[in-house]
Amino acid sequence: MKPTIVFWYEFASTYSYLSAMRIADTAAREDVDVIWKPFLLGPIFKAQGWETSPFNLYPAKGRYMIRDIERIAAARGLPLRMPATFPGNSLKAARLAIAAEPLGATAPFSREVFAAAFGRGLDVSEDAVLTECLIAVGADPDATRAAAAEPQVKAALRANTDAAQAHGIFGAPSFTTSDGELFWGDDRLGAALAWAKKAAPRKS
Amino acid sequence: MKPTIVFWYEFASTYSYLSAMRIADTAAREDVDVIWKPFLLGPIFKAQGWETSPFNLYPAKGRYMIRDIERIAAARGLPLRMPATFPGNSLKAARLAIAAEPLGATAPFSREVFAAAFGRGLDVSEDAVLTECLIAVGADPDATRAAAAEPQVKAALRANTDAAQAHGIFGAPSFTTSDGELFWGDDRLGAALAWAKKAAPRKS
Repeated sequence: MKPTIVFWYEFASTYSYLSAMRIADTAAREDVDVIWKPFLLGPIFKAQGWETSPFNLYPAKGRYMIRDIERIAAARGLPLRMPATFPGNSLKAARLAIAAEPLGATAPFSREVFAAAFGRGLDVSEDAVLTECLIAVGADPDATRAAAAEPQVKAALRANTDAAQAHGIFGAPSFTTSDGELFWGDDRLGAALAWAKKAAPRKS
Repeated sequence: MKPTIVFWYEFASTYSYLSAMRIADTAAREDVDVIWKPFLLGPIFKAQGWETSPFNLYPAKGRYMIRDIERIAAARGLPLRMPATFPGNSLKAARLAIAAEPLGATAPFSREVFAAAFGRGLDVSEDAVLTECLIAVGADPDATRAAAAEPQVKAALRANTDAAQAHGIFGAPSFTTSDGELFWGDDRLGAALAWAKKAAPRKS
């Protein structure tokens, strides 16, 4: 019974990028397993009356966010380049990440997508960009894309988004523990891991 | 030339409470001076179309905030009791904090107010509560209240709020450094102090 956290992320989210690029190493150091759970923030934002990201709705918040992630990325040695369109359309990437589950490629594929979106500023709604990400993790682009178009993959992404909302999630990244605690934001990753270890003490 | 940060806080803000109760010790350990700057979030929220706190406008965010500060307060051994009305009316407290400046009592008075508001759940718009806070820091309640009613104190609070907005501040607590960097949130206090030390290396 290893402690586990669920990592809820959205491919259009800058702070999800920060977490995606470090969660595997950080959690491994704490001996905590991570379940990668892509979801869509759009429907959740819409439910609270937002038609776009709060970083667009509130320009002061948006300007701050950019500077904040610049400082954090620099401190972590992480490349940072914002895509021309923010927030990007993350639907295809999220479906592909779910379709990559049977290959055990959800995490590495997701890292590729985040690196393309925020490390290189690419538009990850473009098929060519996603194809490169699939190839980089050894997934067959045509087969994975076909799988991503299946009704059960679409339903799984909707289920992730519904589950996020049911957990009280309102932003990304978020982390949940086996006892139902919710942590929001890249800056809460450490607290989430510590909580997970308390919640599920390892049997050995 | 000791490094300095400006601590921008709002008496109705729960996360400002978290920072107010630790910033003196934390900054002293880093050998950084702190300028305490009370301001009002109300006009800033109003300017971006909010009539109340985002924690009220977005219930999921509000529920999360409570749980988040419960966990943090518990970890820090800090009492936590939410006042019946949130956000409270912080105008009187903010004016008194400014009126207490000539006495050198802004910081200790502010800690008293925060402790009353969020440590004991009291309504800090009540004169009796504020009187206790003034007495606790050795300030004469009548004299300080008279000073707080002077036009220059009212103008100073408006100036703090205008300056906060000009700095791009959109929430509390916020921290600014001598080279103009802005940090938002209790969880960025450490980063703000580290930045302040880089920005103004101590001459000795």
